[in-house]
Amino acid sequence: MKRTAQEIAEYVGGELRGDGAAVLDSVASLKNAGPADLSYAEERFYDEVARTRAGCVIVRSGEFPSRNVIVARNPKLAFARAAEWLLAETRDDAGIHPSATVAPDAEIAEGVKIGPGAVIEGGTSIGDRTVIEAGCFVGKRSRIGSNCLLYPRVVIYGNVEIGDRVIIHAGAVIGADGFGFVNDGAVHVKFPQIGKVIIQDDVEIGANTCIDRGSLETTVIRRGVKLDNLIQIAHNVEVGENTVIAAQTGISGSSRLGAQCVIGGQVGIGEHAHLDDNTIIGGQGGVLNGKHVRGGEVLWGTPVRPLKEFLLQQAYLGRLTAKKR
Amino acid sequence: MKRTAQEIAEYVGGELRGDGAAVLDSVASLKNAGPADLSYAEERFYDEVARTRAGCVIVRSGEFPSRNVIVARNPKLAFARAAEWLLAETRDDAGIHPSATVAPDAEIAEGVKIGPGAVIEGGTSIGDRTVIEAGCFVGKRSRIGSNCLLYPRVVIYGNVEIGDRVIIHAGAVIGADGFGFVNDGAVHVKFPQIGKVIIQDDVEIGANTCIDRGSLETTVIRRGVKLDNLIQIAHNVEVGENTVIAAQTGISGSSRLGAQCVIGGQVGIGEHAHLDDNTIIGGQGGVLNGKHVRGGEVLWGTPVRPLKEFLLQQAYLGRLTAKKR
Amino acid sequence: MKRTAQEIAEYVGGELRGDGAAVLDSVASLKNAGPADLSYAEERFYDEVARTRAGCVIVRSGEFPSRNVIVARNPKLAFARAAEWLLAETRDDAGIHPSATVAPDAEIAEGVKIGPGAVIEGGTSIGDRTVIEAGCFVGKRSRIGSNCLLYPRVVIYGNVEIGDRVIIHAGAVIGADGFGFVNDGAVHVKFPQIGKVIIQDDVEIGANTCIDRGSLETTVIRRGVKLDNLIQIAHNVEVGENTVIAAQTGISGSSRLGAQCVIGGQVGIGEHAHLDDNTIIGGQGGVLNGKHVRGGEVLWGTPVRPLKEFLLQQAYLGRLTAKKR
Repeated sequence: MKRTAQEIAEYVGGELRGDGAAVLDSVASLKNAGPADLSYAEERFYDEVARTRAGCVIVRSGEFPSRNVIVARNPKLAFARAAEWLLAETRDDAGIHPSATVAPDAEIAEGVKIGPGAVIEGGTSIGDRTVIEAGCFVGKRSRIGSNCLLYPRVVIYGNVEIGDRVIIHAGAVIGADGFGFVNDGAVHVKFPQIGKVIIQDDVEIGANTCIDRGSLETTVIRRGVKLDNLIQIAHNVEVGENTVIAAQTGISGSSRLGAQCVIGGQVGIGEHAHLDDNTIIGGQGGVLNGKHVRGGEVLWGTPVRPLKEFLLQQAYLGRLTAKKR
Repeated sequence: MKRTAQEIAEYVGGELRGDGAAVLDSVASLKNAGPADLSYAEERFYDEVARTRAGCVIVRSGEFPSRNVIVARNPKLAFARAAEWLLAETRDDAGIHPSATVAPDAEIAEGVKIGPGAVIEGGTSIGDRTVIEAGCFVGKRSRIGSNCLLYPRVVIYGNVEIGDRVIIHAGAVIGADGFGFVNDGAVHVKFPQIGKVIIQDDVEIGANTCIDRGSLETTVIRRGVKLDNLIQIAHNVEVGENTVIAAQTGISGSSRLGAQCVIGGQVGIGEHAHLDDNTIIGGQGGVLNGKHVRGGEVLWGTPVRPLKEFLLQQAYLGRLTAKKR
Repeated sequence: MKRTAQEIAEYVGGELRGDGAAVLDSVASLKNAGPADLSYAEERFYDEVARTRAGCVIVRSGEFPSRNVIVARNPKLAFARAAEWLLAETRDDAGIHPSATVAPDAEIAEGVKIGPGAVIEGGTSIGDRTVIEAGCFVGKRSRIGSNCLLYPRVVIYGNVEIGDRVIIHAGAVIGADGFGFVNDGAVHVKFPQIGKVIIQDDVEIGANTCIDRGSLETTVIRRGVKLDNLIQIAHNVEVGENTVIAAQTGISGSSRLGAQCVIGGQVGIGEHAHLDDNTIIGGQGGVLNGKHVRGGEVLWGTPVRPLKEFLLQQAYLGRLTAKKR
């Protein structure tokens, strides 16, 4: 979508310096940008602003006489907002592909796209303008809100509820059975896995990530949560609002994560653990079963301890063994 | 399926106390249950039994005068068994969906369901009452037993043998090439990956889990093994009967796990390792290449050591660095 | 394909001892081989050569009077090369399956196979003799070279470039959005993820592995790289030529790996890290954000340190706590 530099400055609440009539229609890095691209610069890259071919650059401050700049308090945030606005596509691909299989009683709202080979089972509903790409599967009685985007080959089992503006990347599996068995002394008898999954509004779920359904309760991913690729969320887990979790992390059954947590990659969280709001765990950290982790600290290691303590232990080990080399 | 409390008590070998004529048709937790739901209570939750609306509760002992209870030695196990029985569905969806692609020489037994867009290649056989959901792929000469359930988008490569009553969750990949190359000094030449995979009866495989085919030998998952989501099983691995493995664990090539092992999440097991029967490894543990791990102990850490030793080391490190803070 | 022992000896540059007219058409291990199979033996298995039923065995040296052997400097490498040659299939399955959905402007070269239910969007091109198996998805403007093999259910997002002779296993996802957000103090605003992915020639990608597209730059997997299953490659990452990475490893955004690295399973590499050529990292190792890892050493642990140092620390801890037991 074409916008002038002046329009963008107003949209992001910034101040334009330079030619407000410059027309932009995409975004790029300083290095790759051309005259129709919007870019942004952190202070340590201000040297590059003079050299970029970008049509306009968002900065925090400073004078760039030969350049069109927008001055904004948080250039990266302003850039992200402007990019979303500039890159918004006008879709004209609504409709159900003839190779899709849609149950007669599925409720398909206005402007929905259902791609080739997708399967929508009975008792489901799909909200306005939601896009279900090729080969997705939506099981019985699942409900998907409006303005969602399911990339190809996403599998939604039955009885899953998904809010509005949810993005799910290819290969993600929502609602598979939790991993619960009772050993009878010889074999493992399956414990019922008949709970639901609720995914609230504005959640994004990465490629090949798995979110299991509750056993008898419900697995809940709250509003604004962002999950990277290849994550495992077990049965009955609750993830609080706006928490972000990096790739390959696993959360075991019945654990509760608070709001605004930041969980690194390859973290393992045991069963029935509880993380307070604002907890931060570094990559590969491990939280033991049943542990209550207090928030507001950066935690590291297995089992997790405050980063400062972890670094002291590492330094101590380093010194001990240095003598021996 | 509707059953009376008395029928359920008999099915699980328990003793009914209360109204044996009460009719139940589903299961739920104490908190969520209604009058037609069966529930169960561990002793620490006996307070909740008085408050539950469940039509019947399985307990180990005690008096609950106003309640229908079934007394059983292992309430959770009895509940799991009863749930399986109550929730068994009578299927009426046998048949091959017109959008499926089934090779003319594929042997499809009685009562099989093949969902939309599924592909069954030549030389395959699918046993009685097996369900192959939408978008699954079964490669050349693979054989699947009876009463199996393949959720959507499962991929079975060629020359894979799957037993009876096997459950495979969405996105799992069985029989991909193992990761084997020979370096010629410059590039990596692919080592042949032409072995088979054998999955025995009563195995359950989680979503997006990968089990590679043998290189020249066979990858074997024995009877009753339960695998969680996002697990990696490399070429030539053998997993012993009734072993359970939690999510995101990886087992490297040619390793052998004994029977009745319990492997936590995100465990890594090196190549040519050997775990005795009954080995227990805590989450994120690491087993070195070629290591023989004796069973009967709980092991932890990387490299794995007995839990007691691991905890002593952690405590020791904690004290050392505590002085410095 | 049938070849004589003499032909194979010449193909691999080895010396035949025995009956050069013996005809072979497959490969197997010493234990499983029959008279039409080629096998190979490392020195520690020379005892088995006398007992094998293999039609011909590749060895490094020695006398095996009753056997057909090929003497080659690197028997395993010669075997891998011969296997590739013997097992090469003559395909006769070119063509577009009627259930596939191929955009009218997609450029499909000679000898291409497009399997059932596959979707090839507009502006794409698929090179000579490439095989796209059932249920694959190739998004807008992506380009795939010649002689590639995409196993079932691979998802290629739009604007991805793939070279020649690339093998991609089932369920892999190439080009999903990177994990980038800007926190506005309350919620996470999506940072644009509009860069490309370039996969160069002769790369192999394992099942359910994810390679994210660049945010504003490009994610690059260079020539000859081999990736195992369930790997996560984040946005803007570069992986150097002929580097091999084992299963479940994760590489965070903007990291650069040199050429000829060997990365074990479940390794985690932080953001903006840089690994020199020839770096070796043991399984479950962790590289901190921004770290520059010098090559030529074997590194282990989290954070990674030289293996020797890691082992000294482990030994030291073991002794300290041994006193207390």
